Amino acid sequence: MTDTSARLIALDWGTSTLRAWLLDGEGQILDHRHEPWGILHTPEGDFARAYQAVVGSWREAHPELPALACGMIGSRGGWQEVPYVAAPADANAIATGLVKIDTGIDRLSLVPGVMQHSDAVTGALPNVMRGEETQLIGVMVRYPELSKDSLLVMPGTHSKWARIEDERLVGFTTHMTGELYAVLREHSILGRPARECQEETSETASLNAFDEGVKNALDAGSAGLSGQLFSVRSRVLAGELSPESSLAYLSGLLIGEEVRSATAALGDTSRLRLALIGDDALCRRYARALAHFECPDVEIIHDASISGLMTIARHAGLTAAAR
Amino acid sequence: MTDTSARLIALDWGTSTLRAWLLDGEGQILDHRHEPWGILHTPEGDFARAYQAVVGSWREAHPELPALACGMIGSRGGWQEVPYVAAPADANAIATGLVKIDTGIDRLSLVPGVMQHSDAVTGALPNVMRGEETQLIGVMVRYPELSKDSLLVMPGTHSKWARIEDERLVGFTTHMTGELYAVLREHSILGRPARECQEETSETASLNAFDEGVKNALDAGSAGLSGQLFSVRSRVLAGELSPESSLAYLSGLLIGEEVRSATAALGDTSRLRLALIGDDALCRRYARALAHFECPDVEIIHDASISGLMTIARHAGLTAAAR
Repeated sequence: MTDTSARLIALDWGTSTLRAWLLDGEGQILDHRHEPWGILHTPEGDFARAYQAVVGSWREAHPELPALACGMIGSRGGWQEVPYVAAPADANAIATGLVKIDTGIDRLSLVPGVMQHSDAVTGALPNVMRGEETQLIGVMVRYPELSKDSLLVMPGTHSKWARIEDERLVGFTTHMTGELYAVLREHSILGRPARECQEETSETASLNAFDEGVKNALDAGSAGLSGQLFSVRSRVLAGELSPESSLAYLSGLLIGEEVRSATAALGDTSRLRLALIGDDALCRRYARALAHFECPDVEIIHDASISGLMTIARHAGLTAAAR
Repeated sequence: MTDTSARLIALDWGTSTLRAWLLDGEGQILDHRHEPWGILHTPEGDFARAYQAVVGSWREAHPELPALACGMIGSRGGWQEVPYVAAPADANAIATGLVKIDTGIDRLSLVPGVMQHSDAVTGALPNVMRGEETQLIGVMVRYPELSKDSLLVMPGTHSKWARIEDERLVGFTTHMTGELYAVLREHSILGRPARECQEETSETASLNAFDEGVKNALDAGSAGLSGQLFSVRSRVLAGELSPESSLAYLSGLLIGEEVRSATAALGDTSRLRLALIGDDALCRRYARALAHFECPDVEIIHDASISGLMTIARHAGLTAAAR
């Protein structure tokens, strides 16, 4: 028997957007609201008012429904800071770390982020995520074959490469590739050819330049990107690269280096299942880069926040488990 | 017999400063002027007026003296673009590439930069320098033992690692470490802890944090910096790194990665003589980083522009060779 009545108010409240869903017992979307009210852009920083504007009508219709939010809303700059749960972590550990806050109209549970502590033995550095853990939980529920032994890559401003074993997030690294691209494009000498250029690049030229960047990152091998980054400028000066394709080349260099670095750090990854999670266009770029590293046909999974929120709500006892 | 009469008007006209010297036949300084009139800061962009203000009185006293300038003044954004000379290049090749311009009060020779073209066989990417070639020529004249087979490192906004063989600059790489540090400090999330912090770090804490950065870059090995950069933030969040020491740690990570990358690309460097050329405080930081990579006691050489300008002037026949 399918449960089609409302069972959960679920929110993914990030840095730049606020997405909210009214979900039934199967995690199907009964209603939704998307606003550009990420925690950096919430009108007047008034989280309570934004929350009421988005979920108020659902709350009136369903006074008893649990409400759950993941993402940066639980960070220091958000509504209330929720302490990180330590990796390795599974859905249960994350559910145990929920913090309930009074919103003025109801009680809202906030999902904790996950912190990986440093490890003197392995040399691992600390890492943090907030929001991605919920998507990872969602992916494991939706794709059980990825929950045993896999590498889940979440491209973005701060890309995460997460190791999954036996339905647990066992460790992860962060690559600041998206932010690095943005600050180099806007503020460094490398963005200048494109900033001064009136021409637009063609799709083909852009993909070719991207591939050259990936290939150069791969060819650099253990020397890494340090001696290659300047080639975004020097190849333009040498007439090898057009100004209008220079940002695509920079993107290829940076994403190529992320893939090279992450796979080098992991050692033999051939036994691991690999999947990309996130924005489709960006995931396709990563898939294109991964193909240079003998990882063709990597699966792309779109946003898994809803499944993750539903699963965490069940583990926390906020909603009944699906039958 | 020592020649103590004026023989050369020499200028190092870079991005941020203009330095000019009146030199005798031995390259001794008879007079000098330093102005903050680099090509990005020349008043009203009027190079002729700036030039006249700086060298006018010398020119009146010595109407026949040759004048020679190196640096960004010969770039596209400078007075007149001087085509690059191709690497490998020696003092003679550089002298052959001089371009004479009419300044309104005299004729000024501009030193060309050096371009390394890409090489499909070695995988070398293009690289350019403008100003550093003159310093390298000066170093070879002053330190003949470095002119045979050495690695000359010039830290800065765009650090250069130059391979010298038989008095020739045979190849070089560029590492944008200084610029990367500046844009990450000012514009990325990594600079935020320090930007928000009122405390000042102690010298000892700063050096310790720098060393931790260098060590982490070294420990990353072939995985490189991509997965480590975020640790500037995550180590602060984890309570391992104080906000006021976070920029010193970032500096250590970036300089450490430059040294790791450059030495990895060169293979066995144990037979090479190594020297650092440039600003004393920055060279000391690099020497400190190099010590982590089994390169202790690296010699530090201060500005060698004057020797280089004198040598290039002689090779160009502008001044007589010293006896």
